[in-house]
Amino acid sequence: MAAKCNTAGAMPCDLTRDVCQLKESVRSQGKQLGRLVRHMKMGCKKPPNQSTLKGLNPFLPCLKPDFLYHLGMDTATTNFPKVFGDVRFVCMGGTPGRMERFAYRIMKDLRLKLSPVTTLRNMTDGHRFALYKVGPVLCVTHGMGCPSISILLHELIKMMHYAKCQNPVFIRIGTCGGIGIEPGTVVISSEALDCKLNPYYEVIVQGKIVQHCSQLDQCLAQELQSLANPCEVDFEAIIGKTICADDFYEGQSRLDGAFCDYTSHSKVAYLLGLKGNGVVNFDMESTAFAALTKRANIRSAVVCVSVIDRIKGDQIRACPKSVSEWEKRPRELVSRYIRKVLLDEVSEAKNVEDVPARCMGGESVI
Amino acid sequence: MAAKCNTAGAMPCDLTRDVCQLKESVRSQGKQLGRLVRHMKMGCKKPPNQSTLKGLNPFLPCLKPDFLYHLGMDTATTNFPKVFGDVRFVCMGGTPGRMERFAYRIMKDLRLKLSPVTTLRNMTDGHRFALYKVGPVLCVTHGMGCPSISILLHELIKMMHYAKCQNPVFIRIGTCGGIGIEPGTVVISSEALDCKLNPYYEVIVQGKIVQHCSQLDQCLAQELQSLANPCEVDFEAIIGKTICADDFYEGQSRLDGAFCDYTSHSKVAYLLGLKGNGVVNFDMESTAFAALTKRANIRSAVVCVSVIDRIKGDQIRACPKSVSEWEKRPRELVSRYIRKVLLDEVSEAKNVEDVPARCMGGESVI
Repeated sequence: MAAKCNTAGAMPCDLTRDVCQLKESVRSQGKQLGRLVRHMKMGCKKPPNQSTLKGLNPFLPCLKPDFLYHLGMDTATTNFPKVFGDVRFVCMGGTPGRMERFAYRIMKDLRLKLSPVTTLRNMTDGHRFALYKVGPVLCVTHGMGCPSISILLHELIKMMHYAKCQNPVFIRIGTCGGIGIEPGTVVISSEALDCKLNPYYEVIVQGKIVQHCSQLDQCLAQELQSLANPCEVDFEAIIGKTICADDFYEGQSRLDGAFCDYTSHSKVAYLLGLKGNGVVNFDMESTAFAALTKRANIRSAVVCVSVIDRIKGDQIRACPKSVSEWEKRPRELVSRYIRKVLLDEVSEAKNVEDVPARCMGGESVI
Repeated sequence: MAAKCNTAGAMPCDLTRDVCQLKESVRSQGKQLGRLVRHMKMGCKKPPNQSTLKGLNPFLPCLKPDFLYHLGMDTATTNFPKVFGDVRFVCMGGTPGRMERFAYRIMKDLRLKLSPVTTLRNMTDGHRFALYKVGPVLCVTHGMGCPSISILLHELIKMMHYAKCQNPVFIRIGTCGGIGIEPGTVVISSEALDCKLNPYYEVIVQGKIVQHCSQLDQCLAQELQSLANPCEVDFEAIIGKTICADDFYEGQSRLDGAFCDYTSHSKVAYLLGLKGNGVVNFDMESTAFAALTKRANIRSAVVCVSVIDRIKGDQIRACPKSVSEWEKRPRELVSRYIRKVLLDEVSEAKNVEDVPARCMGGESVI
């Protein structure tokens, strides 16, 4: 039964006042409803008491303190949840200059800014790696080769664990030698193969060979690829297999190393054989990167731009300006991905009147 | 028959004049004899038209120019014989700070000095390695792991070749984890073993495993060891086998990595087994270093100081002051070796009235 509308004989001014009061009540109740929905959706959750990483070393709780030796940090003097708890993306590349440039680029793209009296700080002790933090993004160097990146990953994975990070995504960016693809093409690795074409990262543990799967996250690879627009004066991004060599010269069948015990003919035959197996590029870190992130339940991707077609040559002959432009492409693609993820979260949060702090809604000071 | 002495009846003043003239003739002839001996011993040799390196890539003469990509130098714009032709010792270590300190230390020990308005310059493009030159000594970083040092060695070996260097000696210095030896002990490697205890450095070339011998120069190791004086408030230097791991954590059986699928019991059993096989320390570069230098006919040594006994622990617990003091020991030993070699050459040269320029005979400006 409908409630009686008790306004018969009321004066117009009383009606107007009632309408205003009712509108105010509706607005107030709407806000309250929004807060309740938000509370039900997110607010009930307690702050996470552990990271989403899995399969980690059972001895970690015994390490008091744990010293992340090559980063120059330890759990006694750094409050990991406070300093790194908001990290969502860990981007890594070979050289300090490249990763510092990427950090400043991400800062601009996320509309974050520094206080006028500060600059980004390398958060390591500066001896082996460089690490910059820009809001939810870490930008870090990994040196060259699997042993170097494996040291970094062991320590970054422990960092994510101690910081109680939730679903961090790890992305390696860099340059590479392409195999039968146009220089300037961005390659997103589907899987990383060792030089015997196995999708494994091998570690010798106590004298025994242990193999870890080095496949990468297919959904993440496709999501990254979808953000390139080759039709709109952009660049091409392809998905393909990456072969991970332990050596830049002989291991990649180059003719310009200090040693070379094979012919130019066998070199080309080898590269064409790789191409026939779906391999599109070489790098020197992808098996360790893929395997170690996968073991820890971390989604990860390798995004590299080819700066040479190895079937045609060994030394980079493209003009430095072109190479410099190509080098920006993986950074551009990863920046688009990070912005998309954060924007999607903002849109979702807006539906329940909650906008995450420091994301896309205006400039925030780091 | 003796020549007649035609001085009968001569005046004392005439005799004095003759004696002076004869003395002058003797001095002049002595100098001439010295020059002739020197000329016979060294001066007849033309400037070397090639280095003493052997077994190098037959394609090198076709590389015009050759770009040493990771050092940021090329044969078109750098006059290698002029800039690097006098290099006799190539010392390498992991971090830029350590090698820069070593460069300044060598400069002091060789009594070389800089002009007041200059400083030592990192001669690379600064992206991946740092390289300093102090007279006949190169001080260069190699990053972490065999892939990283192999890139450096390919390019340094090409540099020595293009510069026509004569008998360069390569020495790697650094820190390491000892196995059953006192922290602070300096280890000079007799040979480098892979993690399966083989004295090989394996490279996968065009899909096939190629093994290169990773034994080191025994005479050089003994010469270096003879320069330590454990009885005279110095330090102990031992010669032993080094195991070269591709991983800092699981590959060296540590319990403090992000992952650990073994027990503390199996860790200790593994390390004691290594000790029983004559292994005294771990590093991450020695197989590549030993094999690549040996292939090029370069005498080489690995000199590392142990900063921890791995049987007793995984993380360095010694006080930073002690570690800092220990780190100087390989540098001290190598500096003594370099000075001894150069002093021996000076002594030998003095016998034929020839002192090599800028060596030990007073301060010289670089």
